[in-house]
Order: sequence, then C-alpha cells, then structure tokens
Amino acid sequence: MKQTEEEEEMEKQIVKVGLMGFGTVGTGVVRLIEAHQEDLQKQTGVSIQIKKILVQDKSKGRGIATMQRLITEDPRELLEDPEIDVIVEVIGGIQPAKDYILAALDNRKHVVTANKDLMALHGGEILQKAQEKGCDVFYEASVGGGIPILRALVEGFSSDRIKKMMGIVNGTTNYILTKMSREGADYAEVLKEAQALGYAEADPTSDVEGFDAARKMAILATLGFHVPVNLEDVSVQGISGVSKADIAYGKKLGYEVKLLGMAQRDDDAIEVSVQPTMVHTSHPLSTVNGVFNAVYVYGEAVGETMFYGPGAGELPTATAVVSDLVTVVKNMKLGVNGRGMVGPYKEKILKADSEKYSRYFLRIIVRDERGVLAQITQLLSEKNISLGQVLQQPYREGEAEIVMVTHQAAKRDMDEVIAILEELAVVNEIKSVYRVEGGETE
Amino acid sequence: MKQTEEEEEMEKQIVKVGLMGFGTVGTGVVRLIEAHQEDLQKQTGVSIQIKKILVQDKSKGRGIATMQRLITEDPRELLEDPEIDVIVEVIGGIQPAKDYILAALDNRKHVVTANKDLMALHGGEILQKAQEKGCDVFYEASVGGGIPILRALVEGFSSDRIKKMMGIVNGTTNYILTKMSREGADYAEVLKEAQALGYAEADPTSDVEGFDAARKMAILATLGFHVPVNLEDVSVQGISGVSKADIAYGKKLGYEVKLLGMAQRDDDAIEVSVQPTMVHTSHPLSTVNGVFNAVYVYGEAVGETMFYGPGAGELPTATAVVSDLVTVVKNMKLGVNGRGMVGPYKEKILKADSEKYSRYFLRIIVRDERGVLAQITQLLSEKNISLGQVLQQPYREGEAEIVMVTHQAAKRDMDEVIAILEELAVVNEIKSVYRVEGGETE
Repeated sequence: MKQTEEEEEMEKQIVKVGLMGFGTVGTGVVRLIEAHQEDLQKQTGVSIQIKKILVQDKSKGRGIATMQRLITEDPRELLEDPEIDVIVEVIGGIQPAKDYILAALDNRKHVVTANKDLMALHGGEILQKAQEKGCDVFYEASVGGGIPILRALVEGFSSDRIKKMMGIVNGTTNYILTKMSREGADYAEVLKEAQALGYAEADPTSDVEGFDAARKMAILATLGFHVPVNLEDVSVQGISGVSKADIAYGKKLGYEVKLLGMAQRDDDAIEVSVQPTMVHTSHPLSTVNGVFNAVYVYGEAVGETMFYGPGAGELPTATAVVSDLVTVVKNMKLGVNGRGMVGPYKEKILKADSEKYSRYFLRIIVRDERGVLAQITQLLSEKNISLGQVLQQPYREGEAEIVMVTHQAAKRDMDEVIAILEELAVVNEIKSVYRVEGGETE
Repeated sequence: MKQTEEEEEMEKQIVKVGLMGFGTVGTGVVRLIEAHQEDLQKQTGVSIQIKKILVQDKSKGRGIATMQRLITEDPRELLEDPEIDVIVEVIGGIQPAKDYILAALDNRKHVVTANKDLMALHGGEILQKAQEKGCDVFYEASVGGGIPILRALVEGFSSDRIKKMMGIVNGTTNYILTKMSREGADYAEVLKEAQALGYAEADPTSDVEGFDAARKMAILATLGFHVPVNLEDVSVQGISGVSKADIAYGKKLGYEVKLLGMAQRDDDAIEVSVQPTMVHTSHPLSTVNGVFNAVYVYGEAVGETMFYGPGAGELPTATAVVSDLVTVVKNMKLGVNGRGMVGPYKEKILKADSEKYSRYFLRIIVRDERGVLAQITQLLSEKNISLGQVLQQPYREGEAEIVMVTHQAAKRDMDEVIAILEELAVVNEIKSVYRVEGGETE
C-alpha cells in the first residue's frame, strides 16, 4: 500500500504534454525539455514530460531517435488522453491547428502555441474559449521568436499606456535588407541567396510581402493597446519594391531601410501597418541586422525601450514555448489557470488617412529644367508639407533626380501630392515613397 | 442590509497602498496611479489607492498638492494600518528601509521596492521572510529603471540556462563616457558638467566607482544563475581612471569604452564583476548611449538578446514599481501571493582567477628602441597570450606607445604579464588595461 501511495504522489508530480508538430521548433522543444529537465523541475516542482508527439507522416525520419515511440498520426491520441494536461502546438498554419486547439480547450487542456497566423486571425475566439474552460493559452513564441516581448507588454508595462510599437519582426526580410545594404546588392540576387541558405522559403511571398510581419503586428497591437486588432486592420507593403538605389540614397541622408511593423496610438485612435521604412542611423532599430528581430516600445511613462533577440530558429523559439509551458505548470500548481488573462477592453477606433502623420522619403526623376525644384517645393508647401533634407543630382541625359525627406505630414496630404506629382509634366517618374522614422524630434 | 453588503463588496474592490518615500520615484508612482487609474482598474478589476505617504519631513513642500492630507512622518501609520495591503518602498538606502520592509512583511503586507542597495545586500533575508509570511516582494525597479529585465530573466527565460549577462546598468557613468567619447572631453570636466545638470550626485562615488552597478549585477546574477550572489562576490572597478586617450585609442581599433557589469557562468562556476570595458562597435551594447541602460543576456538556447530602455527617472522607474503593484494585486485576487517565488537553488561556486578568461586591451609606454615590441610579444606568448590587434606609434621624445588587443587569456596569466611588464626596463609606464567584449567569435 505504502508504495502505491508514493507512486500516486509521484504521478502527480509529473505534467504530461502532448506535442503537435515535430519540425524545427518541435524538435527544439523536445531537446530543451530533455536538456534542462533538472532546472525545470527545480523551478516548477514537477517533472515535465512529453507523452505523445503528433506528426503528419510517421514514416518520415526524425532527428531524435529516442522519441520514435511517442510518435502518432492520430490527433485523438493526444486530445483524448486524460493524462495529457497541456498541448503544445507547433504545427503552424490555420487548419488543422485551430480545430486541434479548440478541441484541446474543450477537453480542458492548456495550450501553448507558436502559431502567429492562428493567433492573429482567431486569437479572440481561442482566448475566449480558454477563459470559458478555465484554461491557459500562451503564445510568446508567435512574435519575435526568443524575445519575451509579449510578457513585457502584458506584465512589464501593465502600468503604462503604450503609444507606439515599431518592430523588425521578420528575420527573412531583415536578412535580405541587411545584405542589400552591406553589399550594395540587388533584391532579386539576395533573395535567391537567402533561399539557397534556407533563410527564405521557396515561395517567399508571406515574408517578403510583409504578411508574416502584419500578423505579428496584429498580435502586438492587440496586447499593447488593449484593442481587438484584426489582420485586415493592418495595411501592408512588402520589400519586393526596394531597390539598391533607395538603400544607397537612404545611406547618403543617414538612414537604413528596414521592414518596420508600426502600431501607433494617438488619443484613442490607432493605426497599424507594415512597410519598408527609412530608419535614421541614430535610432536603435537601425542597428538591428541580419536575422535578428527587435521590438521598440514607446510608453507614455516609460519612454523609449527596445527588446532585441533572435526572431526564429529551433532553440530560440523553443525557449519561448517552454517558458510558456513553465508558466502553465506553475499556474497548475497554484490552481489559477485561465484566471490571469485580461482581454482587449478598449473599443477599436482606426485612424482615418487624414489623422495619420509621418515623415516621408521621396525619390523622383524630373526634367532637368530650371525651376523644377522650386515648383515641387511650392506644391508641397501648398499641402503644408515642408522639407527637412533635399538632395538633387543629375540622372540620365536631360533628367535630374530629387530625393527629399519631409517633416511630419498627413498621409492624406502626401497621397494628394503624389497624385499631383504623377500628373506633372516636369516629373518623369516617382521612384519611391517611404515612411521615415528617427533622427528628429517629432 | 442590501446596501451594506454592496458597500462591503465595493470595499473589497479597493486595494490600499502605503507609499514610503515621496521623492522623485514616489512622486512618479502617485502620478502614474492617478493618471492610469482607469487602465489599472480594467486590468486588475480593483481600484488601487494610496492611503498614506511616509516622508521624513512633513514641512517640506511636495509637488502634488492633493496628496498633502495623506502625508505622515510616522511609519506606524502605514505599517500598523490593517487596511493597507501593500507597502511601496521608494526611500532607498539600507536603513530604515530594511526595518520597514521586514515590519511590513511581519504584518502580512506585500512589498514593492525600488531599493537596489537593500535587495543586493539583504534580498535573501527579505525574500525568505516574505515566503514565510505568504507575501509578495517584487523589485523590478531596482535594476534597469523602466526596463522589465527581472521579469524577462525569471519568466521569459525560465526554460533556458543563462550563460552571460552584460549590463550598462548605471546611467550616470554611461552619460559621462558617452560625452567623453563624443566630445573627446576629459573625465573631470564631464563629471562637473553632469553634476551641474543633475545627472551626477554631489558625491558621485557610488556611481563612478561602480558600486551602484555592482549592486545591480548582484541582483541580476542571483536571478539569472539561481545562485545566491552577494555584493562582496562582485569585483568592482569604476570609471575615474578612464582617460580620453583610452577612449580615442579604443575608437581607432573599433571599440567604445563602457562601464559593463558582467556576470558569466562556465559549467557551474560563475564570475561577477563591474569594470570599464572596450566594447566593439559591432556589439549592440556599444550603441547604448547617454543615460540609457541596457542588459545583454546570452542564454544557451536563446542565444543573444538585449533589453534597452531608460535606467532612471521619475516616470520610467515608477512604471516598473506600479507594474509590480499590478502583479501583487492580481495575485491578491487569485489568492496566490508569495507562492510563485523560486529562490536560488544552486550552490555558489566562484571562479578562480585562473578560470577567468577575457580578451584584454593594453596601452603601455615603452622606450623607443629596436626590438621592444618583439620582446613584449615574446613575453605574452610565453604566457600563451596572443594578439589580435597591435598599434605602435611615437609618444614623447625617445618613447613609443603600444596599444594591444589580445585574444582570450586567463586573468591569472594577464596579471602575471602586467607584473613582469611593470619591472621591465624598456617599459616606462602601463597606461591602462581593459577587458574587451565583442567583435570576434570568442
């Protein structure tokens, strides 16, 4: 009898996890739990064990041989196992991940996920179900890989009102832009290289067109502003139009081109967007290079902060997943799962274009005639747009190139100016328009 | 009857706080709680109210007129008031803060403190008492001002094993070094300016000699390594010996001088120190300027991360204090105060000097004779120290200046080399020795 009681007691000191997905991140999760078992036990008081691993195709070879016996193709073996307390979902994508997570919650299993697509699109529904069922859902790994940025927003800055978040939240595009900047190389060329190295996917659309970053910004904006931000609220522009000439001119004027996610709040109105942006070299985001990620957070009280780290990778992302798992386990011991969550409590008010202000970088090709610059600055001035920096130089025969950085201007005014410039006889081509951040008291 | 019940119910929805200290941070705490009351209430479900404010001298004018009625000089009015649930201590210094905090815990009041001196010296005792009494003690504001770095270590990286932390954790010295670097100015001159601007105290010893940074590093090392690190375990060197020549030579070789707190773990042995360090310009810490703080954290799994923000100031520090207060209040609602804490669970093993490795920057004045550099490199080579960078140039009449950056070397070997160099006939003066970080795969 004595032994059985001890066994039962021991049994309780084990938290069993069902792992869904055994790719890069899933492998990292297994490795981390094995390698850091002693520390995890010291911190949580329990042993965290993976009981089952869901894969799509059992016949595919896996990196960790000892785990073969845990592998299954049947999700019910995880979802319907009463011994499994927590589901870790690292499959990615919307379906079947969404159905699995909802089923897990229905069976009162806690969920840790790295799934940005799912949380950006259906986070509200999932978190509401979690609350109903008294379950935890954590998703630190969905934004910024190993950077604990969601905790910083939710807990670290719980006392503050966040005004602005700017993020380099996609490693692929940051790798491409960094390489273009350092080597003066073309986009297409660097993309090909990145694909060969595995830094970019065969179909790179989601990364290079900014969709991945947009999902992460929807998650950040929801948590930072306490407003339910949907993916369709995020305006998106990718980096496929960034030329090496833009990067070179940016450098001349003191900027680096970065794909910036931007979430800004003025009074109660917000705007969320992703676009290539000229970031002044004095701004901490300008020095974030290669596959690194960083999120800059400006709080009304705290002021400027930045969180920097690896945005992807097997072990960095696994760190975020397993740290979430530790929180779930601690909450289980305290009996408070699903009770600490604070959902969005503010009404969503999106800014109109006339309320969106930014500085702009403009590069245009004009006829090399007397008075052209004066004509253009006059046009800008009529729309209340003044210039901070101007660079004019010869382009091809009979043409000149003008690069301008404006002071703050309303997006609506800027759009109007662009439309007029496009019709202007002396303007031959509008090469590029970028947002500008940093380098000036705004 | 109905009304009384409702009143009681309402009564429970207020958490009353005793604030100790009404200086810069105390004022910030009051302002933040007032300005963000609605958000705090939305997040915690209760109203956070300051009931009493302890000051040393009631007759001194205070910034916030409406708070005059809450002011008292008698700590018992806070400590013995059963309505007060939480004590926020922002007096600073060891005594009487320590007695107040222990008394608060004895009376089962939770504690939020910004007191780095106290937590570095007596954190163990205080946290133990808190655990006995089932109370929370949080101290995010004690390191890195508004940067939520303690949460990142304790929760964000709970799944990882931290190998190295490097911190610019003292704003005063970073302001001084930044100004010396930018303006090529002398230490004494910049210190005087910093004092005039209020960035340095009349007696700047605690900042410029590195004691303040050492306290913060003791706190970081304790949390990051799960080892009880005491202040006396931290070796300390300040910036008063940093010359403008050192900074200029550093720049020539690609480094900025920063006062770095350093906590490093190899296997189970740790070293914790504070010293002026040559930080390569490719390292993210090199770009942290002015009064900003940053903590670089290297985890075995997550790799390189950095947390950047304001290290001091009324509102930034208050943000950290009030965010801790929010956590206390949330824990009160869940009934889990004092139950989430994990104390240091690893044995403290400090490295011997022979186990401490670093790269070094050396600047020495030698006789301008043939073969001197060869003699010196020979000496280094005998101690297994090889050079990464060397710069030799004429100094005064008959003298030359040699600046060297070594590869990794044991501290013991380096100390021996220095001792031999000091005795060497051809060496006239050893101008400076610095640790070196960044810029090389180590």
